[in-house]
This record gives sequence, C-alpha cells and structure tokens, in this order.
Amino acid sequence: MIRDDALEAGYEMHDLARRLFPICRSLTGEGTRETLRILQNELPRLTIHEIPTGTKAFDWTVPDEWNINSGKLIDPNGNAVVDFKECNLHVVGYSEAVDRIISLEELQMHLHSLPDLVEAVPYVTSYYRRSWGFCLSHRKRESLLEGNYHAFIDSTLAPGSLSYGELLIPGETEQEIFLSTYVCHPSMANNELSGPVVATWLAKWVSRFPRRYSYRFVFVPETIGSICYTSLNLPELKQRVIAGFNISCVGDDRCYSYLPSRAGNSIADRVAQHILDHSAPGYRRYSFLDRGSDERQYCAPGIDLPVASVMRSKYGDYPEYHTSLDDLSLVTPTGLAGSYEVLRRCLEEIEYNDRWKVTVLGHPQLGKRGLYPNTSTRAAHDAVKTMMDFIAYCDGEQDLVGIANTIGVPVWELQPISQLLVQHGLLERISL
Amino acid sequence: MIRDDALEAGYEMHDLARRLFPICRSLTGEGTRETLRILQNELPRLTIHEIPTGTKAFDWTVPDEWNINSGKLIDPNGNAVVDFKECNLHVVGYSEAVDRIISLEELQMHLHSLPDLVEAVPYVTSYYRRSWGFCLSHRKRESLLEGNYHAFIDSTLAPGSLSYGELLIPGETEQEIFLSTYVCHPSMANNELSGPVVATWLAKWVSRFPRRYSYRFVFVPETIGSICYTSLNLPELKQRVIAGFNISCVGDDRCYSYLPSRAGNSIADRVAQHILDHSAPGYRRYSFLDRGSDERQYCAPGIDLPVASVMRSKYGDYPEYHTSLDDLSLVTPTGLAGSYEVLRRCLEEIEYNDRWKVTVLGHPQLGKRGLYPNTSTRAAHDAVKTMMDFIAYCDGEQDLVGIANTIGVPVWELQPISQLLVQHGLLERISL
Amino acid sequence: MIRDDALEAGYEMHDLARRLFPICRSLTGEGTRETLRILQNELPRLTIHEIPTGTKAFDWTVPDEWNINSGKLIDPNGNAVVDFKECNLHVVGYSEAVDRIISLEELQMHLHSLPDLVEAVPYVTSYYRRSWGFCLSHRKRESLLEGNYHAFIDSTLAPGSLSYGELLIPGETEQEIFLSTYVCHPSMANNELSGPVVATWLAKWVSRFPRRYSYRFVFVPETIGSICYTSLNLPELKQRVIAGFNISCVGDDRCYSYLPSRAGNSIADRVAQHILDHSAPGYRRYSFLDRGSDERQYCAPGIDLPVASVMRSKYGDYPEYHTSLDDLSLVTPTGLAGSYEVLRRCLEEIEYNDRWKVTVLGHPQLGKRGLYPNTSTRAAHDAVKTMMDFIAYCDGEQDLVGIANTIGVPVWELQPISQLLVQHGLLERISL
Repeated sequence: MIRDDALEAGYEMHDLARRLFPICRSLTGEGTRETLRILQNELPRLTIHEIPTGTKAFDWTVPDEWNINSGKLIDPNGNAVVDFKECNLHVVGYSEAVDRIISLEELQMHLHSLPDLVEAVPYVTSYYRRSWGFCLSHRKRESLLEGNYHAFIDSTLAPGSLSYGELLIPGETEQEIFLSTYVCHPSMANNELSGPVVATWLAKWVSRFPRRYSYRFVFVPETIGSICYTSLNLPELKQRVIAGFNISCVGDDRCYSYLPSRAGNSIADRVAQHILDHSAPGYRRYSFLDRGSDERQYCAPGIDLPVASVMRSKYGDYPEYHTSLDDLSLVTPTGLAGSYEVLRRCLEEIEYNDRWKVTVLGHPQLGKRGLYPNTSTRAAHDAVKTMMDFIAYCDGEQDLVGIANTIGVPVWELQPISQLLVQHGLLERISL
Repeated sequence: MIRDDALEAGYEMHDLARRLFPICRSLTGEGTRETLRILQNELPRLTIHEIPTGTKAFDWTVPDEWNINSGKLIDPNGNAVVDFKECNLHVVGYSEAVDRIISLEELQMHLHSLPDLVEAVPYVTSYYRRSWGFCLSHRKRESLLEGNYHAFIDSTLAPGSLSYGELLIPGETEQEIFLSTYVCHPSMANNELSGPVVATWLAKWVSRFPRRYSYRFVFVPETIGSICYTSLNLPELKQRVIAGFNISCVGDDRCYSYLPSRAGNSIADRVAQHILDHSAPGYRRYSFLDRGSDERQYCAPGIDLPVASVMRSKYGDYPEYHTSLDDLSLVTPTGLAGSYEVLRRCLEEIEYNDRWKVTVLGHPQLGKRGLYPNTSTRAAHDAVKTMMDFIAYCDGEQDLVGIANTIGVPVWELQPISQLLVQHGLLERISL
Repeated sequence: MIRDDALEAGYEMHDLARRLFPICRSLTGEGTRETLRILQNELPRLTIHEIPTGTKAFDWTVPDEWNINSGKLIDPNGNAVVDFKECNLHVVGYSEAVDRIISLEELQMHLHSLPDLVEAVPYVTSYYRRSWGFCLSHRKRESLLEGNYHAFIDSTLAPGSLSYGELLIPGETEQEIFLSTYVCHPSMANNELSGPVVATWLAKWVSRFPRRYSYRFVFVPETIGSICYTSLNLPELKQRVIAGFNISCVGDDRCYSYLPSRAGNSIADRVAQHILDHSAPGYRRYSFLDRGSDERQYCAPGIDLPVASVMRSKYGDYPEYHTSLDDLSLVTPTGLAGSYEVLRRCLEEIEYNDRWKVTVLGHPQLGKRGLYPNTSTRAAHDAVKTMMDFIAYCDGEQDLVGIANTIGVPVWELQPISQLLVQHGLLERISL
C-alpha cells in the first residue's frame, strides 16, 4: 500500500538520518541544537525555543546544559580502549569531566557493557545523578589488561538551556492535530532519528495541501522536553488538540505496532487501529501499560491529550534497542516510508472524517444517475454493494471510520464513494 | 413446537399458493392486481390501492404498467422453443413487445440461461431499461438449431398504475405491529408466494382474538412498492409502529434464519432471536449487511422502522433462488406452517411483553397459596425454581423477554407463571 | 496468603464450632437461643432479639416455637433403632410429638434415608406442614425387622418466639457493611456452624481497629429470620448499607466460590472477585441463578441490598450437604482460617477503597524524592513500574479496585504505594 511518493520520501528521510546520525544529542546541549538547526533547513518555519536551566516545569526543573568535546580511555600500554570521536555512545550521557589515572579495578565501576550482546556498545545516561563512565562492547571489556588507565572526559555541566523545535501549520480551523517526536539520543536510529525525520516529512506533506485542521509539530527531548512543552502550553493544547501521535521508533522494517492513548477511544486511536487493521493486519497491539515515551506525559491525569502511537519495533522490545546496533542498517528507507505512509493515512482520514447523511429517504435510485455499473462483473457488483452499504449507514450519527468498521471496508474505499454521492446530491456532510 | 392448527394452516396456505402460482405478477399489471383480488377473498377488509404511473415517491417514479398476453419463440423448423403459456418465466419481465425474424446469433443476445443449473429456467427482469428477451434452460439453449427464429412477445408498457394491498386490524391502542410482504414475482414459490400466504394467515389469526396492538399488513411490489407505501404513510408509520417484520422466503423446510433491523435491538429483533433461540437453535443469523428485501427501505436512514426478518432459506442464498426450481415442491405445507408458527409466536410475545413487578418484599411464601408442588419430582422442582427465578427478576425494570433471556427459559414458559402470580396478587404488570 | 493470626483464629473457630455442634438448633427454640448465648460470650455486645409467634413479616408469619426433649424409635425386639440423644438429625425438624406403636409398613412413610449415600443420616425438616418423622442411614433402614415399632418424640410446637442476634459496631460514618449468617441447623458444620464462627471472629477483628464504616452483624434463622430482620430494618438498611456479605458454607478446605448480588456490580461484588482473582484464582463463579441462602431476601426486588457471597463448597453442591457427613472433619481449622482471611481482606479493601488523584501534572519526578530504587534488580524495576502505572490511572475517576483491575495487580500491593505517595504529597484521596 506504499504509494510511490512515500517510497521516494523514504530515501530522502534515510539520507537526512545519515547526516544527523553522528551528532551527539542529549537532553540539552549543542548536539541537540545543531540537530534542530538542520531540521530547520528542511522546515524553514520551525522555531527553536530555549528554556533556561532552573526553569520549573510541573514537578521538574530544567537541568544544567551538558556539552562534551572529547572523551577517551587509555590502557596501561597507552592505547585508546574507546574514543568518543569514533562513537559517541562510548561516553555515558551527562558524564562530568574527568582526567584521572585509575586502576582497572576502580575503573570497572565506571564501565558499562552487555554480557548478552557482546559486540554491542550500550547506551547509558546519568541525567540526574553526577557521575561519569564509559560504554564499550563486552568482548572488549573482557580483554582489558591489568594496570592503570587514563580516564579522560572533556565535558561541561553548567547553566544553559534546553532546546526544542516547534512548528505550527495553520489550517481552516484552530482545532489541531498534535505530532510530537524526540531529539535527545546520540547515534541511534530507530529509537531516535526515525521519529524526527518522519515527523519532518509529514510536516512537509501537510504544508503542501489545503487542510481543515491546524498541525502542531514538536521536536523535544524526551520526558523533560515534553514536560516543559506541556507546562508552557497546556490550556491551549487542551482546548485545541483533537488528535495526536507520538512519533517514535518508526524506522525499521519489522511489524507495525500500536499503543493507545490512556483513554483509548480518541479519533487518533480509532483511525490508527482502522488503518492498521486494513493495511497491516498482523500488527502488534500494545496496552497503555506498555507505554514508555512521551505519551506518559501527554496522557497523564489532568493533561489527557488524545495521543496514540503507531510504531514499528517498539522501544524496549527489540534486541538492538539502546545499543550501537540500533543504527542505519536497522532503519531502512522502506521502513521509514511505510511508517510515513501509515501516519499520513491516519492524518488523511482524520481530515476527511465526518458524519454523513443521505439526502433521500429509502433507496436512492442509482440507475437514473448512471451510478449503476453497466458491466455485471463481480467487481462491479461489489462496488455497488459497498456503495449501498455505505448509504444504508449514512444516518448522520456514526462517523466515517465507524461506518467503515461496521461494513468492514477500509475507509479509503469509502472516500471516493462519498465524493461521488455528494456530487450527485445524495449525501451531505455533517461536521463532527 | 408446531401446534396442530398451524399445521392445518400450512396445508391451506399451500393450497392458496398453488392457485396463485400460475399468475404472471410483476411490479405492476393485471397479474399483481388479480393476485391481490384473490387475497381479498381471504381477507375481505383488504383494500387495494392504485398509484398512477409517474407518481413521485422519494427518489423514485412509478413506472409504466406492464401487461403481457403471450410470448413465444419459434425455431427454424416452426417449433416453439419456449412458450409464455407454459411457464411465465420464459419472457423477461417488463419485456417490450416484439415480432421479428432474427438469426440465432442476434437472438443469443436476448436469451438468458444458467450454465451451472442446466435444467432451470432463470428469472430475469429489465424494469428500468427498455428491452426484451427470453429465458430458457441451458440444456435447451445448447440444442438450438442454426437459422432464423421468430421472436414474438405481445406485451404493453403504458401509463397505468402500481397496485398494492393494505389491511389495518385495529387493536386497543394505536401502536402498531407492521407486517410487510411482496407480490411482484411470477411463478415462484419461496421467494414470492410463501410471503403473501403466511401474511394472509397471520392476518386471519390476528383478527380472531382481542389484541393490544393494531396490526398493519401490506402486500406491495418489492422496492418500488415499499418505497411508494412508505412515502405515502411515513409520519404515521414512524409515530405508531413499535415492531415489524418483512415476511419473505418463509416456505421451504430448511433451516430458519434471522436478519436484524438496522438498529438491531428493537423488540422485533429481541423477540425474533429469543423465539428462534428456543425453538430452532441452529438457525442462521445474518447481518444487516446481508439485507436485500424491503427492510432496505423500512430501515433506511430517516425511515428507521423497527423491521426485522424471520425467514427459512434467505433470498440469494439457496440454489433454486430466482429460477423455475423455486416451485411448490420446494415450498411445503410444513415449511409454511413452521414459519407461520414462529411468526405467530413472535406476535404473541410482543403482545404479552411488558415489565412486571413483584408485590411483596422478600420471598413470597408460595406454600400458603398452594403454589408449592405436592410432589417432589424433578419437574416440580424445576417449575418452582423457574417461578422463583422469575420473581427474583420482576423488579419493574427488565421486560419479560429480558427476564427470560436472563434466566435462560423460553418466554412461553413464563407466561402461564406470570398469569398465575397475577391471580394470586403477587405480581403487577407495568406497561412498557 | 493466610496470615499467622488467621491460622490461629482458625483453630479457635474450630474449637467453638465443636462446642456448638451438639446443640439442636432450628428456626426457633431453645437450641438456637443457647447458641446465640454462647456467641454472646464471645461478643459481649451482641443483642439477642425475640420476635413473637404470629408476627407478620412481609409475606410471612413467625411460626410456633419448636422444642424437643427426646426422640427414639424402638424396634420389635425393644432395641433403639435411632435415638435423638446420639444425633439430633435423627428426628425430622419441627416434628410434632408422637407416642405410637405402628407397623413397619406404616412407619416407612415417616422414615427418611439416602439410597445413594447409605451411611449418611439425612437432614429433613417440615416447618410449615405438621408432621413427624425419623432420619436414619439407608444401611440401617434396610436391616429393619418386620413387626411393630414404638415411635416416640417428646416435642412441643407452641407460641413462643423466633430468636436472632445483632451486633452493631459503629465506625466513623453511619455507612455500613452488613454481614449476615444463619443459625438454624442442628448438628451440621459447613452448612451451619462455619458461618457463625467466621462471622464472630470477623466481628472481633473489626472491633479491634479504628474503622471508617460501621459494621452490622446479624445471626438469623435462614429465610424466615432474614425476612423478619429485613422487614424490621428495611429503611435503615437501604439507606446505610454500602456492601454486604452473606456468610455461609465457609468451613471446608475445598475450592473457594463466589455468588454475586442480584445487581452483580456492587463494591462487595467487585472486591470479592478481585480478592479471589488474586488469592484463589481457580475459584468457582456462580450466577445469581444459583442462589439459595439469605441473599434471596437481601437481593429481592425492592430490597436490593448489595450482598454477595464468598464461600468454600456451596450449599447444595457438595456430597455431604444436608447429611450427618457435614461434620467437623469436613470443616477444618485451615478451611475456616482461609475463609476468614479472604473475607477480612474484602473488608480491608472496602475500608481502604477510594478514588485517588495525582497532585502533579505529568510524570512526578521520583528521583528527587528518593522513590526511585537504588538497586537495579528486576524486583525494584517491577515496583517502580507498578508505582508509575498506579499514578498514571490516579485521575480521580476510577476507584482503587478499578485501578488494580486495570493494571493487573492485587489491590494490597497498591495500598502501601498509595500511602507512600500520600506521604510525599503526590497523591490525594477523593472520598467515594
């Protein structure tokens, strides 16, 4: 079901992800800011906001800004065991500066590796407790020599600001579709870059067409970023947002998945399930209990935004998650293209969704309007059957997605039918 | 569960169907009018209405009246291939007049047969596109000789009127049970005559007893007839009808079936399912998506009558449908009797259905009223158990059908119990 | 899940049951009164009420009081076939006095035995029809000699009163938990004594602690007793009782069972199911159609108290029911202790149940409050997950039991979490 332009977009998204991959993003700092600036090249109206360290946001406080120039671990023979320049996962996120000679024994407490995934470098952070450390493959760790090591990290942790990007694309109404993605992980692909690049291409696509709803795209550091954003914009969000998606883990080629909003029955939920039911029927359905990204904030009690998630392999549920193996071989152009297409379909269907009412009582006479097929093929028969079923439920009560669910056809088959019937004066749209 | 009088009615209905069988009915014309007059002999208060050609009815217009005197196809040797006199299915319904000599090749475009059912003559119409044609068995068609044929149909298509029958049997209240059946097919039995004869016998039965509700029986040509009828009577129907059934395909001996109203939860639906659950548990349950008769009109958005269908083999779903094999060997006295009995039960239960309230608090003492069995057989124990279960749910909220569903017994077992309890002052009826 | 003090209580309850076992209880009479006096020793504030013979209660009238001194059946050789002194089941309950010499043939009409359970003495009564009779094992019955027997019963049936016990333990509010059990069977253990002893120990336990709700314990003869009690106290019960349990058949070691209130969704029902789901997952779920004890009165239309039942082997559904085999080898200390524990849990959870609301928007920051585990064990991770899931649903709408059901953990795991969160100011209680 992937349309050609989506596949093309897949390659473009993959290219951009490749440019962004080496940058060392974190909750704060120059890497995240640089990432947002590169996204600004794609989306010129994207605004970059800065929130100063120490700002209160709900139960949280914006932390110090973290920046890092270099990091290296030198073994007793003077060889570099790991070097931040080669892979930014080697230094624990938010590590404080260090420049010490220490024994292997003491060093071990600062090392992180994965005994079950011996070639992978794990991704580790220590945002809210001052610490430092290195991440390396378990295979390399097991070959470390006895002796003294030089641990060197040139980083700063100091007042600064948290950066995020925001883009509002106005539509006919002030009612909004809210799309959020995160920018805060260093070199990772599915659980980082897939989100921002798909969100960027969705924003480009939305901008190109007239639209009923306004669209709000945000690119925020996970958790603290969405908390800051929500705390700054809550009344507006609660008043305007009719549907939203958290765009995360949308890059690999594996099975689609869906995670509901807390309420579970918003139009975002209903459309996401409908689209996946018909285009990816084997998709995996999570519970809100499986949540783990910014829907935790958006759906929290008192915030209650109608935000669902459509993903491929969900954070925490694929072997490469939070390791150096989550790279641009795992995330592919077709993986990105598929997610883009599914999310685009979701937006299309929300745009189009409405209640409809047939304008005549009883069966409309299709024949006199040329709506009856001239050929008596099976396909022609099925088309008329779908049209008649659709008409039979256009009572002004159920919305289009509800009718499509009742008659068991994908909503995109009902769109052209509804347009044809409107042209013939047989149907009128009743805004939700 | 078929009572004796129903079986007797089955034979009488079959006799009447045999008299009506040869008549050439269509949407309009003398055949339909003659059929209605014969039904009038059975139901003297049946009124025959005529709606002139050209009358508008919702989205439709009453078509020209079609009448036919004869029709014949003569082969190159002068032999009659088919003759309308032998079987009225041989001429396509609404055929215009023709009197031409044409080659076999050209003739083929006007012939209809069934390659998969080589002995059957199909039933074909061309109501809204002027045309002519003959229907014949595929076996006969394959034996046609090369050469010129004489196609002769003596028919008229001219302004006239559409005929339908209506019978209102008043009850205590103006609230109505609406029973509709169709008269528009030539010599067919299950998908035509079973409906009118069962409706006729139900009307006779209803007339014989005091009744709470009024009953409206209509005998209309399918689709255009029900559209005309509804357009003429809509406000009254919407105001009065509390339950209805479309009576179609009620004549063969096969499995019962049920097709819900669009809303699906009317008292007609609930009673039909309850009766079939307990008397024909293997019955087939259709969806409203499987609809195909006049419930399409009665349940259309804006009309919304509570009309369900109880059938035997449903139109479109049995091999003899719309062929000469749908005859009076397929439809049997016992088949008709069974449907009559089930529909009669439905009407009985709707008449009796109400909410009930027990008049004492706590367990009523059955013993002092002689309601406790003297024998301690299993049957006696079960009867007391049913009575106590019934009382336990007579809270004035659920109706009788609901209580019967809750306690898992057929509603006809609760009727005598409720009467007994009312006699003993233990129960009071709370009108719905 | 049985706590130590419950097991200890199990032994104490079993001891009391052993003292009460030989007493000949019935709907009325000295045996029931003596039983209530013994319970009064355990619960000094238990009040014993007397309702005179002839008092009207709803549809019923309090019967004559029955007392019995002795009863004996002497065979032709002068040997006692059965003697009331050995087992009070030998005399049919409510037998009138008799002192006659009759043939074996005539005697047979007054004998009761169980052909399928040849060693058991059945329990038989004739409350509302004057009669007399003896119950004996089928094996003994089959060995009876031909000849004349001396049937002797020294009993009285005369105006007196029906006795019941009542204990109100006041709490902070006038809202009440209602606990009813029955005292009316002679020497039977599961279907008699298990109820009063468990109810007694629950009352002791309730008295020991501060409590939100008031607790009303009643010890009544089954059916006529609960009818009398309800008829005397209905307005108060309807106004105050928010949850209740009928305590019956709670003594053996077999599977737990649950029988809902008529409405089925009261807090008593929800808590009982939740507790059993998590502590006895194989428990048997009955329908209200399987009812048979005083919930028949408490849940009758117009009374409608929220009374559910948590049992072990339900009355009528175990082989020893209503026979001499229902004794104190069937009922065990651990069986009693388990039921006591489950019912105690139910009361605890009803006491604690409320709606809760998180006081911060978005994720609370657990780290700064020391609520994040320092160790990264699986158990610590699960604990944080449960805490976060709990917080995610504390929206002030669902009650604690509802949240526990949603997130799939027993409610007793949420209690300490909720207390901790309240201490940290993260949660506020919203009274139901």
